[in-house]
Amino acid sequence: MKPVCLVMGAGAGIGGTVGKKFALEGYHSVLCRRSDKEGLDKMVGDIKENGGEATGFLLNAVEDNAIEDRVAAVEKDIGPIEVVVFNLGAQIGDRALADTNYKQFELGWRMATFALFRIAKSVCPLMEERGRGTFLVTSATAAVRGNKGQHSHAAAMGGRRMLCQTLNAEMSPKGIHIAHILIDGAVDAPDTLGKMLGADNFQKLRETRGLEHDGLLLPEKVADTYYHISQQHRSVWTHELDLRSFSDQPWWNH
Amino acid sequence: MKPVCLVMGAGAGIGGTVGKKFALEGYHSVLCRRSDKEGLDKMVGDIKENGGEATGFLLNAVEDNAIEDRVAAVEKDIGPIEVVVFNLGAQIGDRALADTNYKQFELGWRMATFALFRIAKSVCPLMEERGRGTFLVTSATAAVRGNKGQHSHAAAMGGRRMLCQTLNAEMSPKGIHIAHILIDGAVDAPDTLGKMLGADNFQKLRETRGLEHDGLLLPEKVADTYYHISQQHRSVWTHELDLRSFSDQPWWNH
Amino acid sequence: MKPVCLVMGAGAGIGGTVGKKFALEGYHSVLCRRSDKEGLDKMVGDIKENGGEATGFLLNAVEDNAIEDRVAAVEKDIGPIEVVVFNLGAQIGDRALADTNYKQFELGWRMATFALFRIAKSVCPLMEERGRGTFLVTSATAAVRGNKGQHSHAAAMGGRRMLCQTLNAEMSPKGIHIAHILIDGAVDAPDTLGKMLGADNFQKLRETRGLEHDGLLLPEKVADTYYHISQQHRSVWTHELDLRSFSDQPWWNH
Amino acid sequence: MKPVCLVMGAGAGIGGTVGKKFALEGYHSVLCRRSDKEGLDKMVGDIKENGGEATGFLLNAVEDNAIEDRVAAVEKDIGPIEVVVFNLGAQIGDRALADTNYKQFELGWRMATFALFRIAKSVCPLMEERGRGTFLVTSATAAVRGNKGQHSHAAAMGGRRMLCQTLNAEMSPKGIHIAHILIDGAVDAPDTLGKMLGADNFQKLRETRGLEHDGLLLPEKVADTYYHISQQHRSVWTHELDLRSFSDQPWWNH
Repeated sequence: MKPVCLVMGAGAGIGGTVGKKFALEGYHSVLCRRSDKEGLDKMVGDIKENGGEATGFLLNAVEDNAIEDRVAAVEKDIGPIEVVVFNLGAQIGDRALADTNYKQFELGWRMATFALFRIAKSVCPLMEERGRGTFLVTSATAAVRGNKGQHSHAAAMGGRRMLCQTLNAEMSPKGIHIAHILIDGAVDAPDTLGKMLGADNFQKLRETRGLEHDGLLLPEKVADTYYHISQQHRSVWTHELDLRSFSDQPWWNH
Repeated sequence: MKPVCLVMGAGAGIGGTVGKKFALEGYHSVLCRRSDKEGLDKMVGDIKENGGEATGFLLNAVEDNAIEDRVAAVEKDIGPIEVVVFNLGAQIGDRALADTNYKQFELGWRMATFALFRIAKSVCPLMEERGRGTFLVTSATAAVRGNKGQHSHAAAMGGRRMLCQTLNAEMSPKGIHIAHILIDGAVDAPDTLGKMLGADNFQKLRETRGLEHDGLLLPEKVADTYYHISQQHRSVWTHELDLRSFSDQPWWNH
Repeated sequence: MKPVCLVMGAGAGIGGTVGKKFALEGYHSVLCRRSDKEGLDKMVGDIKENGGEATGFLLNAVEDNAIEDRVAAVEKDIGPIEVVVFNLGAQIGDRALADTNYKQFELGWRMATFALFRIAKSVCPLMEERGRGTFLVTSATAAVRGNKGQHSHAAAMGGRRMLCQTLNAEMSPKGIHIAHILIDGAVDAPDTLGKMLGADNFQKLRETRGLEHDGLLLPEKVADTYYHISQQHRSVWTHELDLRSFSDQPWWNH
Repeated sequence: MKPVCLVMGAGAGIGGTVGKKFALEGYHSVLCRRSDKEGLDKMVGDIKENGGEATGFLLNAVEDNAIEDRVAAVEKDIGPIEVVVFNLGAQIGDRALADTNYKQFELGWRMATFALFRIAKSVCPLMEERGRGTFLVTSATAAVRGNKGQHSHAAAMGGRRMLCQTLNAEMSPKGIHIAHILIDGAVDAPDTLGKMLGADNFQKLRETRGLEHDGLLLPEKVADTYYHISQQHRSVWTHELDLRSFSDQPWWNH
């Protein structure tokens, strides 16, 4: 029975691509996403064609028990969850305070912070028993600085980052590796950036900054680093790292 | 009509003492706290005896509309809110992941993060219209690092800090000063530390570290700095500062 | 005999103005700067006319013994140094790596880092004996993030910030308050910004952003906060704070 | 002609082991260290026996022209420097301010900060011309917080970190990857920790925390991550990451 890599937020960007990487390295990847059954099936099919194992589930992470039940079913039906890739985003674009309502603010927290707490509550006890496990938490610049219009996103991501630190403080000595991975730039991902910009603008951006310019983070290259982090020997664990294109400015530079 | 200093979390520690300071400097202090009508009346009475103006309200900040209605009533009945002292804590002591339940985690967020968002939504438009205002947000070390057992507290405070940054990014150019004040040490406060430790242990701590040793933050001295920050000229605003006793180690030192 | 406030880097900006503030609050201000005897005499004269005490010295801080001898002479001839305002800058403008030579890089360190170490070595033992003292260290955004072209300045300021933390760790429990004050914006100061921009551009900037716009930090307002920090009760010391105009973006926002 | 991996500070710990890793992956490793010709020869011999290429040089990095001349000679005689592993330490143990003299403080800067500036000045123009290159800079917790007794070390490392950021800001868009690698724990290295503790204490520490406990960072495992970082695709570069044993507390936790 293969160890399981459970991906929360498995769109056609970092999530799905990291899932594929783990599948090709010998894990059974369980890909969970909110919508787009067709896209999900395509990802699973693509992995299988390449000789990997994968299963896909549509799942609304903010619903009661959706995460908890899925974790239980995966452990029962598929195998032990060795790696969690927590890739749920909560970016809703820049909105002034007046244009950010309570519901949006709460939803940001439910996606980006509370869902991580819930999956940690569900999976950590199992990993503890087995003495090993890995959480690869995709994060954003908004976790370390709050920009204009990012009320919901930054508050949720700031909470996520601190939660990663408290999880690490308790779980690391028990053999569970928690990594907070700061994606500090635009990703060449049709499901997130593509949808935010619209097809035409996304294609334009790819042509001017992406593709051969390498100015957008390529998901398959991101996946290499996620995989490396998951394989670090326990004497040398990384808790936090940043990733951006060589041609991009880090968040701390103007 | 005096300008109003609205204190959320006006216990017999930083909150109430800062409220008193502002009252003695010419504000009408509106003191809000969840419980202890007697303690609240005593604080209001103490301010009045010293020649200041104050009004007290019992208020459960996490209840729907509690903050929103109070803000509206204060503006209508008492005066324009010029200063908000946001002093709601969310410390529940160190608890392992297994001992932290969903309800606690959510409550931490409702107190420490969402309540700040709600009061900002309520008060900022009024301050914007008037072209001025100040938010003094009491914060904790947990906003910048997540220690073992602090899952709920750190996630909530990390969100609070990022929210202060997004509020500042939008509101500062409109004349609203947002200050994130990192209280990095134990406070000589019977209502918080006192209750957490119990009366005897609290008294012991005061005798060994507090009182003439000055090893606990004295609320009235904290209040001096809160007041100074609120009076900074708009050409020199502080967004973040830390406070601790001279004899305490900062959080970043072992 | 009045306590002494010793200002290193007492130009017509933050340094001289903070010196004046302390003089008017009852200190004897000792103003040290590298050049411009006339400007120095004017500052001293201005303080005296306003009823304060001050003495001025021209002093090249990077010269061997210049700091050490001055400290000794001040203690002998004027009074006990209670406050050090360390205000030496090391900004040389943006220069590519190829255009930054060894001498400039070393000079940056001698001014911004080593001079602070030297004055701390000279003054701390005296303050320790007296059980009290304050270092107000002017710092820059370059202490927390390294921007393009800032090789010399950022390396020197990053060293300065860490040195402030090690000094604080050792000296704070002995009653010596070390404050690292991050000036995160342009200062309305003819001696620094004015010289960097040239008289005409400086005046234009003042007209568009400064003066009634309050978009440049006003030295006399900066001085109010320096003074407040120096007077904080030892139960509530601030080690680090930032200062910028309300209309300026903090360094962490784009 | 193989690309060169130039290691500054190639002791029997991270430096030498990273050098060996790169040699086994196809680089010619040039190992530079201050002393111990025998140890250096042994490392070079070990690499050659394993089928790699390596050359060793004794070199005192703080001497005038030592770095500059070595870089020039390597480029002329061995090959193009594609990777610099900058591994010079400057830890002198905890010393009170009174016990840290000017010479030590300056030496710390010469080793940890200025030597990096010098090697960057020497190598970056060559890498720029070739459009590619990597700097892997070993760093320490002292780069991000200044602990008691670390005056020299923290000031030097704080400068190093900011210098890495300014180098990155200028060089990254030119294809030169700068990585600041925070070693946040004790390394199982006889040449550094071993010498600091003495042979007996070092062996005891290895038996209680190291060896099968994996509580000390294993240099060969550190080397895996250094190598991974050097091979990251330019669309996904990491500038900063931390490394510590799973059983160690991160610097930000008490």
